[in-house]
Amino acid sequence: MALEDLIKAVDEQLLSVTQSSVPVLQDASHHILAAGGKRLRPRLVLLANAAVNGPTPADAVPLAVGIELIHTATLVHDDINDHGTMRRGRETVNARWGGTVALLTGDFMFTKVYQLMATYPGEINAILADATATLVEGETLQILASKQGTLDRDTYMEIIAKKTASLFVAAVELGATIAHAPAGWVTGLKDYAFNLGLAFQIEDDILDLSGDAETLGKNAGIDVAQGRGLAVAMQGGRPSGNGVTIELANDSLPAVEGFGDSLLEAVTKGREKAREYADLAVQSLDVLPASPARDALRALAYQAVNRDH
Amino acid sequence: MALEDLIKAVDEQLLSVTQSSVPVLQDASHHILAAGGKRLRPRLVLLANAAVNGPTPADAVPLAVGIELIHTATLVHDDINDHGTMRRGRETVNARWGGTVALLTGDFMFTKVYQLMATYPGEINAILADATATLVEGETLQILASKQGTLDRDTYMEIIAKKTASLFVAAVELGATIAHAPAGWVTGLKDYAFNLGLAFQIEDDILDLSGDAETLGKNAGIDVAQGRGLAVAMQGGRPSGNGVTIELANDSLPAVEGFGDSLLEAVTKGREKAREYADLAVQSLDVLPASPARDALRALAYQAVNRDH
Repeated sequence: MALEDLIKAVDEQLLSVTQSSVPVLQDASHHILAAGGKRLRPRLVLLANAAVNGPTPADAVPLAVGIELIHTATLVHDDINDHGTMRRGRETVNARWGGTVALLTGDFMFTKVYQLMATYPGEINAILADATATLVEGETLQILASKQGTLDRDTYMEIIAKKTASLFVAAVELGATIAHAPAGWVTGLKDYAFNLGLAFQIEDDILDLSGDAETLGKNAGIDVAQGRGLAVAMQGGRPSGNGVTIELANDSLPAVEGFGDSLLEAVTKGREKAREYADLAVQSLDVLPASPARDALRALAYQAVNRDH
Repeated sequence: MALEDLIKAVDEQLLSVTQSSVPVLQDASHHILAAGGKRLRPRLVLLANAAVNGPTPADAVPLAVGIELIHTATLVHDDINDHGTMRRGRETVNARWGGTVALLTGDFMFTKVYQLMATYPGEINAILADATATLVEGETLQILASKQGTLDRDTYMEIIAKKTASLFVAAVELGATIAHAPAGWVTGLKDYAFNLGLAFQIEDDILDLSGDAETLGKNAGIDVAQGRGLAVAMQGGRPSGNGVTIELANDSLPAVEGFGDSLLEAVTKGREKAREYADLAVQSLDVLPASPARDALRALAYQAVNRDH
């Protein structure tokens, strides 16, 4: 099956596993899941599986569904904390149904992952469970650092490793492990995914600063407003003063009080770093045999740092 | 090992599995977990295991930990939605650390269950996963019914079956299944737990009305204030008027505007119903061989409807 056919199967299963006798849970889940998104994590599961010559690509589909559900559940919960109103070009669950339903919808998706994965081997479940625990820890670190104004570069790197790269790593590990790939290939894929995750998140944080909300499909400028993200990290903590005012303008960097010129510098440095990580990701794939899937993984790394949403 | 020794092992493991490199997640988890509570669900796992002559009681301990963690995670999330300030005689996580940390602490506990259970057989994981999904559905139904003012008796029964009885049923099923109990015994235990769950929740809702916060160790009167719970159900919907005013007095029923005399009637009827379910629970155990564990399960059913907290 071609990748896009498998992704279609993932999309269908995302909706079928989140069916519920309680209409609002199904409606809210489908609202965010059907909005699409890049499906980057499912692609990583499926491409890793293909890159190690997984004999039955369909076996990787439920794993891709599980990964995407975890990711989406955390987005739904994030949007409660951030008071985000737009996500994947739609209203957030929080904005449309309120915080209580958003909280329960996130919980519902977590339980659906657990249900979906129940019959998989312990080894597979441990990969996803560990990454999910790490992800929650990363998000908590982010909130603490932004509250306490302690977001320096090291903390920023720890946060993005935990909240983003961990799930990327789990994605390729799941895809490769279900195919019983040799250890060396799995390690190469994990190195790739870790570096890709860092590159992707740095670029995401740059887009939060410089992108416009319509193209992004979600609120922009939230990171700086909350004293977190790349610019704040590059600055070595929160900008002076308690309040941060942002004015967003299309096609330009936002004016952020307390940053001044250093914002542009932060973005420039960040973009450099992101490209370095993308290069490392690409190199990590050298241990794998040449294949269209390996090419596609490489292409993903370049796309991650060359995008507008 | 005696039951109380096993419960002690459960208590210890609850703390060890919620260790984290992120201090606030560990602190908030331990704050609520170390506060104790009745540990009713772990007791059900362990006693069901003993009642079917489970040869290795220690095998049931992690399952008891998993059940209690699920229960506690939902309490932490509930307290965000309810704005509860007191739980198990302590400040709620929400009151002490705020909604964002409370949300992430609940998520953290969910992921810790998933991690803890990863190496168990699919059959075991399916039991806990299904019950957890049902629990979240039950809580959502409760919120919708109270928002929409549609809480009649049937809806109330559906809600308490889903949000409370489902986890009780999973508890005994886990304890018996890990011991490879015969199907007839498992069915008897599940019937017991389902009826016990209904009896327990009705009594809980009565205590919310008639108990005092200090003895309960949590806020009282929240159910009626939120247009839910037994009294509202017995009334066939929310009381007339938008706002509900409650004045709580120790050792007496609260004065609830819009209820009048019917509140006392609701409590009387509710207590009758709870005793009927407790009797059904006790009878369901007849299929099991006589044992101290069976006696203890019977005693739990009577305690569930004769308690002040």
